[in-house]
Amino acid sequence: MERMSYTIGLDFGTLSARALLVRTSDGAEIGTTVFDYPHAVMDETLVTPHGKVKLPPDFALQHPQDYFDALDHILPALLDKCGVSADDIIGIGVDFTTCTLIPTDKTGTPLCLLPDERFADNPHAYVKLWKHHGGEPYADRITDLAVRRGEAWLARYGGRVSSEWMLPKVWETLDKAPDVYDSADYFVDAGDWIVWQLTGNLTRNSCVTGYKALYQDGAYPSPDFLNELDPRLAHIFQNKLSGSVTPVGTLAGRLSEKAAARFGLRAGIAVAAAVSDAHVTAPSLKVTAPGQMAMVMGTSSVHMLVSEEPLPVSGICGVVKDGLIPGFYGYEAGQTCVGDHFAWFADNLCPAGYRDEAAERGLSPIALLTEKAAAQKPGQSGILALDWWNGNRSVLADFDLSGLFIGMNLNTRPEDLFRALVEATAYGTRMIIENYREHGVPVNEIRAAGGIAVKNPFIMQIYADVTGLEFRIAGSAQCPSLGGAIFAACAAGAEAGGYDSLDDAANAMGSLSDRVYRPIPENQAVYERLYAEYALLHDLFGRGGNDVMKRLRRIRAEQNT
Amino acid sequence: MERMSYTIGLDFGTLSARALLVRTSDGAEIGTTVFDYPHAVMDETLVTPHGKVKLPPDFALQHPQDYFDALDHILPALLDKCGVSADDIIGIGVDFTTCTLIPTDKTGTPLCLLPDERFADNPHAYVKLWKHHGGEPYADRITDLAVRRGEAWLARYGGRVSSEWMLPKVWETLDKAPDVYDSADYFVDAGDWIVWQLTGNLTRNSCVTGYKALYQDGAYPSPDFLNELDPRLAHIFQNKLSGSVTPVGTLAGRLSEKAAARFGLRAGIAVAAAVSDAHVTAPSLKVTAPGQMAMVMGTSSVHMLVSEEPLPVSGICGVVKDGLIPGFYGYEAGQTCVGDHFAWFADNLCPAGYRDEAAERGLSPIALLTEKAAAQKPGQSGILALDWWNGNRSVLADFDLSGLFIGMNLNTRPEDLFRALVEATAYGTRMIIENYREHGVPVNEIRAAGGIAVKNPFIMQIYADVTGLEFRIAGSAQCPSLGGAIFAACAAGAEAGGYDSLDDAANAMGSLSDRVYRPIPENQAVYERLYAEYALLHDLFGRGGNDVMKRLRRIRAEQNT
Repeated sequence: MERMSYTIGLDFGTLSARALLVRTSDGAEIGTTVFDYPHAVMDETLVTPHGKVKLPPDFALQHPQDYFDALDHILPALLDKCGVSADDIIGIGVDFTTCTLIPTDKTGTPLCLLPDERFADNPHAYVKLWKHHGGEPYADRITDLAVRRGEAWLARYGGRVSSEWMLPKVWETLDKAPDVYDSADYFVDAGDWIVWQLTGNLTRNSCVTGYKALYQDGAYPSPDFLNELDPRLAHIFQNKLSGSVTPVGTLAGRLSEKAAARFGLRAGIAVAAAVSDAHVTAPSLKVTAPGQMAMVMGTSSVHMLVSEEPLPVSGICGVVKDGLIPGFYGYEAGQTCVGDHFAWFADNLCPAGYRDEAAERGLSPIALLTEKAAAQKPGQSGILALDWWNGNRSVLADFDLSGLFIGMNLNTRPEDLFRALVEATAYGTRMIIENYREHGVPVNEIRAAGGIAVKNPFIMQIYADVTGLEFRIAGSAQCPSLGGAIFAACAAGAEAGGYDSLDDAANAMGSLSDRVYRPIPENQAVYERLYAEYALLHDLFGRGGNDVMKRLRRIRAEQNT
Repeated sequence: MERMSYTIGLDFGTLSARALLVRTSDGAEIGTTVFDYPHAVMDETLVTPHGKVKLPPDFALQHPQDYFDALDHILPALLDKCGVSADDIIGIGVDFTTCTLIPTDKTGTPLCLLPDERFADNPHAYVKLWKHHGGEPYADRITDLAVRRGEAWLARYGGRVSSEWMLPKVWETLDKAPDVYDSADYFVDAGDWIVWQLTGNLTRNSCVTGYKALYQDGAYPSPDFLNELDPRLAHIFQNKLSGSVTPVGTLAGRLSEKAAARFGLRAGIAVAAAVSDAHVTAPSLKVTAPGQMAMVMGTSSVHMLVSEEPLPVSGICGVVKDGLIPGFYGYEAGQTCVGDHFAWFADNLCPAGYRDEAAERGLSPIALLTEKAAAQKPGQSGILALDWWNGNRSVLADFDLSGLFIGMNLNTRPEDLFRALVEATAYGTRMIIENYREHGVPVNEIRAAGGIAVKNPFIMQIYADVTGLEFRIAGSAQCPSLGGAIFAACAAGAEAGGYDSLDDAANAMGSLSDRVYRPIPENQAVYERLYAEYALLHDLFGRGGNDVMKRLRRIRAEQNT
């Protein structure tokens, strides 16, 4: 019997880190270990060695010690649990939430962990988590200047820079905590920082540099642009953000002796370039070619495709060379609020009688609402919604938009509004698909991962009916870490027991379940008409026909001060 | 000491009848008695002497025996309770829900009560309550034909005939129960029917003939129009709807010997023309001149004004000579859904946590929502609503419209939506006021009665802030019966101890509390901006800019079959 090879996918999520051991020959998932971050997300209070620091609004920090602790736990425990020899493990792939950013000294030590503790009480010396929004005003200024100067790269980002990205976060530190900024030798994406810890080398992965750091066609924004933004930023990419760019799915380095000893692995095995926790999903769904859309459906949703060309698609989050699959341009679009809509509804508007019924029957409120909504036919309630409770990422790239319900009468029940929210998110996905197509990027089928895709047949059938496309569902419950393991097998190469092409790796190791959601023609016919109404309202309120949402937002802001 | 005179107001509501004894000199309310109708509203099942009959949808019937029983109880009990001699009672005024319609033989006996019981099982032989909507298709056909023929009277009704009115209800009987129709000598408004029982004479009151039976400028719709509608209806107003028209606030007849003996009153005292239970409120609020708007605020709202001329005001429910105050043209506009919105919200979307908190603190869910909403500033939530959960009566006269919420985000709480609904009804009232003004009918101040006006300072302050007008509040808890007593004093005349003019009667006997809601300038400023947004959406969805509500309604109807 041939000797088996294995790779490890390391998935760093918002609240925990997971390691998954995968057999390279067939993608069999041998075992998994998880570690919850002790500090979780610090968005109100920063816990320091000296006490507690109250955080400003819009902050979301993490503690880098949690990542060390995670690695110390999940890697040795994984080998113990699986009974696999370290000799048979040929590579590691890492994904991380993005853009999650760490200021470090030149050795990679996060500034908040410097032995002299001089920055231990400074929030800016900690990890700025992906959803840290303190950089909002900086993002707006970057967008404004890029528009004014006609920067070509802006079109690759749907015309807007997000506060979640790298430059706004760094600029915020420069502006609010110049001592931290001055002392930082590097600002490092957390995924690249993990790779640095494993290999001893700082590299920048093509996914994050492309989607989150404005790196396009081999270059960052020009020093001239940056100088006009703030002279102190002029050479930021040559200095504090420097590092060679490594395509995802390729080798970032080899496991160092030190790391191998610490984690009980074999020195010299392949470590793949890091990748974002959304994009890493594509190979786990065997998405390796144009026309196949990978969707991750959770609190928010991401819609990913590849193409051989960098087509200028408006209203998407990014077009990035090697951003998704090496050798292709990766396209990313997104919906800011999907499961969050449903949770909002269940938390705020699920009436007492439903809660009681759910409790009696051992259901969650969402499960009960789902059951009631599933008993309806499309359009039966007469309610339509716009899915903008958290703004609109694609295709409008406008976070000042807000939600809408229309069509209520005195017979309207909670499940009618709940179903309308589900349908609205499906219309939002269809809008993204049609936008891709209009710009020459084909979408022929959808492969979906994430909690909603795996757990909610009601929602998935609506998505199939609304989009008119088949939805195939992830076969793995651990798509991100499986994706990391696939990238690791590519980085290791065929000679070491992995693969020389991502196509081969994804097809051998990726996993799709047998479950396929196909459009039901009579539902599709009704949804054609409802989608036309959605599109009308979408353009009316989203493209300047009636800017009531923005005016209400302005009044709201004034009345809240 | 001068001998005191008294009048009785008889108020026939939807679920009960009330008698109120009032001193004519100063309007002092001496005492009141109430009787709940044993059959209440029959909208699912008709209870007959032979069993139960299932009713079609849209039916709402009453049993006329309940009215006899009410009179037998509340009149004798009133005198007992108040210790006032029948000799000192000089008149009776009656108000009734409208248009509540009774088919009778020539003696006034309702067909369902004929001794041979031949119609006892036929729903059409019972009382069709104001909210009986079985005549909907007939109302539409009447409106359509009137539009096609350019009937002048249609403009007096805002361009639309309601299924709640007299002709659709009669036509429905003709069409669905021709034997009942043939056997009916008369179809009588229930208020006029009570007056008939008291006086022995059938008269038709100017309020109901005007607002509900299309009587304008001294004439009903022409036989030619009616013939085109249905040849069998050609002479309906000369035959089954015949009777002289008596202005409200004037004498309809004198109490018969028979009625006097039955109810323990003095024969020959004045009985005023009946009036609708909304319009009867005006004199109780001392509304007797142009510029004073009387509002009744409850599950729905009514907005009444008088003017010396019949101005063509679009989008109102009716302009009727002697409809409100004798000698003036009475204007009526309305909102179909006011308190009903708030009840809908509390019934359907008040979350379990709020219900628990309300129960613990001994509050109703609406009271808790009100308390939370009252803690906000105008515009603070960023939510706006259109108050069309039950369509729009004024000024759009369109019952195919539906509700809208806009501006939600993930921080939106139930009280935000609740407050938006309250504000939307206030915007709807402002729209009605501005419409009156644009058509030359001044609105200078508002006097409000009804449960919301009396009980909810939070809502009333919002109305004052939104409209920029002072709101004075009814001083009586029994405005309709007080209004009836005032009309009775007018019908009796000064010589008998009453009054010769309604002005004198209303000023002496009407009642306003000291509570005045005045606009708060800083709130008004914000509501100016929010109202502008409401008006924009109102016209967009209500005047053909985007007919999505109607298309959703059509899809809903198709999917519910």
